[in-house]
Amino acid sequence: MINVTVWNEYLHEISNPDIEKIYPDGIHNCIADFLKPAGMKVKTATLREPDHGLSDKVLNDTDVLIWWGHKAHPEVEDRIVDKVHDRIMDGMGFIALHSAHGSKVFSRLCGTKTGAIKWRQAGEKEILWVVEPTHPITEGLPEKIILPQEEMYGEFFQIPKPDDIVFISWFEGGEVFRSGLCYTRQKGKIFYFQPGHESYPVYHNTDIQKVIINAVKWASPICFPDVTVGKTDPVMPLN
Amino acid sequence: MINVTVWNEYLHEISNPDIEKIYPDGIHNCIADFLKPAGMKVKTATLREPDHGLSDKVLNDTDVLIWWGHKAHPEVEDRIVDKVHDRIMDGMGFIALHSAHGSKVFSRLCGTKTGAIKWRQAGEKEILWVVEPTHPITEGLPEKIILPQEEMYGEFFQIPKPDDIVFISWFEGGEVFRSGLCYTRQKGKIFYFQPGHESYPVYHNTDIQKVIINAVKWASPICFPDVTVGKTDPVMPLN
Amino acid sequence: MINVTVWNEYLHEISNPDIEKIYPDGIHNCIADFLKPAGMKVKTATLREPDHGLSDKVLNDTDVLIWWGHKAHPEVEDRIVDKVHDRIMDGMGFIALHSAHGSKVFSRLCGTKTGAIKWRQAGEKEILWVVEPTHPITEGLPEKIILPQEEMYGEFFQIPKPDDIVFISWFEGGEVFRSGLCYTRQKGKIFYFQPGHESYPVYHNTDIQKVIINAVKWASPICFPDVTVGKTDPVMPLN
Amino acid sequence: MINVTVWNEYLHEISNPDIEKIYPDGIHNCIADFLKPAGMKVKTATLREPDHGLSDKVLNDTDVLIWWGHKAHPEVEDRIVDKVHDRIMDGMGFIALHSAHGSKVFSRLCGTKTGAIKWRQAGEKEILWVVEPTHPITEGLPEKIILPQEEMYGEFFQIPKPDDIVFISWFEGGEVFRSGLCYTRQKGKIFYFQPGHESYPVYHNTDIQKVIINAVKWASPICFPDVTVGKTDPVMPLN
Repeated sequence: MINVTVWNEYLHEISNPDIEKIYPDGIHNCIADFLKPAGMKVKTATLREPDHGLSDKVLNDTDVLIWWGHKAHPEVEDRIVDKVHDRIMDGMGFIALHSAHGSKVFSRLCGTKTGAIKWRQAGEKEILWVVEPTHPITEGLPEKIILPQEEMYGEFFQIPKPDDIVFISWFEGGEVFRSGLCYTRQKGKIFYFQPGHESYPVYHNTDIQKVIINAVKWASPICFPDVTVGKTDPVMPLN
Repeated sequence: MINVTVWNEYLHEISNPDIEKIYPDGIHNCIADFLKPAGMKVKTATLREPDHGLSDKVLNDTDVLIWWGHKAHPEVEDRIVDKVHDRIMDGMGFIALHSAHGSKVFSRLCGTKTGAIKWRQAGEKEILWVVEPTHPITEGLPEKIILPQEEMYGEFFQIPKPDDIVFISWFEGGEVFRSGLCYTRQKGKIFYFQPGHESYPVYHNTDIQKVIINAVKWASPICFPDVTVGKTDPVMPLN
Repeated sequence: MINVTVWNEYLHEISNPDIEKIYPDGIHNCIADFLKPAGMKVKTATLREPDHGLSDKVLNDTDVLIWWGHKAHPEVEDRIVDKVHDRIMDGMGFIALHSAHGSKVFSRLCGTKTGAIKWRQAGEKEILWVVEPTHPITEGLPEKIILPQEEMYGEFFQIPKPDDIVFISWFEGGEVFRSGLCYTRQKGKIFYFQPGHESYPVYHNTDIQKVIINAVKWASPICFPDVTVGKTDPVMPLN
Repeated sequence: MINVTVWNEYLHEISNPDIEKIYPDGIHNCIADFLKPAGMKVKTATLREPDHGLSDKVLNDTDVLIWWGHKAHPEVEDRIVDKVHDRIMDGMGFIALHSAHGSKVFSRLCGTKTGAIKWRQAGEKEILWVVEPTHPITEGLPEKIILPQEEMYGEFFQIPKPDDIVFISWFEGGEVFRSGLCYTRQKGKIFYFQPGHESYPVYHNTDIQKVIINAVKWASPICFPDVTVGKTDPVMPLN
């Protein structure tokens, strides 16, 4: 059973009634609610809890951490970012949703200024196309997912070359975006997935849910080979 | 349960008593014997059977095809190569072992002259190093596998850039080789794995067996998204 | 000075007056006309010439071969395809334009059925977005190229994972397409570039011309390291 | 003319007479001396100068920064690391040599703990094999470079998947290492090159010099496409 922690800054839902209507218990609980029936053991954590809800014990017990943050990226304390980064290096999977492209954790993993992209909030249509149909994250999906309304995110997305581009998105206003992306960093597997602006009921869409469920399975750690480092005796005799 | 077919040209074992001693029932049966206890349903097929043992029915019932061939690559009929290639395009996994780098099927998948490499049969030591420890093919392995004796295969290996380089090998005589490689072609997943010269008991090594078991799991088909092609109506109304 | 040969099937322009109006001397001569002022030495060759215009001498003297073909892919003789493929393996650059995705040469390089894509000829708008702005093929370009009318090509494009995705295209009807793609095969560099349907004056667009000029420079051969193959003495003494 | 700045921590050469004998004017001047005749305009900078020799003016005038550091990584001030990182994001090329795998700049670019590798200083032989002979960094090289004595660096090297693996190294004691690696980060091109331990005259080797000259050419900035970000008007009218 995979241990998932869903982290949410949880600010929009408690300050904006329109968003509260879409996610009455917060985005984190909406996500938890569709992960549980998929057989996962799910906790949630939010920004304003002590340690942002991410104590050492919570992190150590987490196989995959899902991250939704938007307007409060700078509020996330660097000491927690350090710990999350350490756990990813050690094998914890990490799924960055939507505006988490600009989060401290994702930027550090990428080594670039991932926060700066094109964007527009105009309630326009988005179409996500599968461009890597052998990838386990696409298992059981249709070839495209149509979202009636989404925030536009447009290229150039200042990211390192992805290991896998699973989805490319089309937006009504003329932009494209690499919207489903896989990376590895040391032992950790990372998936960035663009859909999920707070103003639209994106996480109620069952195909979007299926992507996130598949991504959790893909990102969960394996029984890794040893990685020994430091001063090393030769395997073979030296002349 | 994954349906595996192990294909072997099965010529060395029946013409050379030294090799027969290592693989009395042929390399294919040695491989079948360690795949079965791993929970797979295994068939075997060999070059000199009608259709090389690869009838339409056999191919259609195969999730993953393992291929060992060496001195008789040209004997493999093009009509069978076409069918194997078609099935890979449609999702059948394909694992090319050792000298199958020069097989017709692997060359066609690569689009290059994959047969021409450096080689030397001197019974020298090989060390395989894991260089992608997050990959499911490395699950449960140590960081290196030492083979006391193997045929040397050396770079430059004239292959397309691999999607994943899982192993890099060291040889006693000074060469290196990208020895565990992943590709996708349409819906098919492909793994090339270099160890397995017929003169050495390589497929009796339990770590080598673990790699092949993991590779079969990785290469088995998923429930793919639709891939529709041809003349297409617009998703969105055109102006 | 780079030696370029522009190959065109040259059938649409001589059988359809509308297309003749756009390319009175054929697509090949239009392309030759903008390559020459960029400092290249340019020849042309067409399908109905002996050897399709691609004699051994022509191929041996070609650094980069540009290929435009559409309705007559099957007419291209396999013996010429073999020679073109051999020259690419040996270092000749290859630029496949538009419907050359379905050409015999490009399919062989890819190892997949590259001909099957989504398409629609409705005169709709295409927007090409640069998604790899460090790549030499993008030198001096704007971040997007808008084509008022183009044939739609849509995913899933059944190609191997590209080494570089330089452009992603947006189409008015809701589709996306990986429209500028780099590969290497042995010593040869390959660029696929989607724009260029014969019914629209795409090759008269100066940004499209700049892409092709840059691509020729990128694909031209370097002074390669040796690639020695075959039975090899050890570099280091064996025990 | 490419503007290169060669940065060196310049501590070993002034404290250890054996190393001073190899590099009497420091590693930075040795590198500068072979870059100048290759047509480059070269400056040097060292750790103990004000701002580590990397004032804003110096950085702004640098097309490609070469970095050699080893025992004093922590002494490099974060405010200078920030500026170097900013300039790379904006297009400055960056070449990290040898123990610069553990430098603050390279680690930040990678997003991983790049400092932890296997190592051994035993004066053993290294053989670098070209595994991407189409890459401009290999122009004019032989297929392998033999270094009679080098420090061993061994896998697993905890780096993101490289965009290009240009060299793989063999070490006498049984290890392998991905020793020549390309990345892009935003507009910056990055090359990591493993040879160059201070105790051996590696930068006097003319093939190693050729690699570094080629890498400078490859990493120098192009005239980039615009990258506009932020709130964006639609290209196409929204319904």
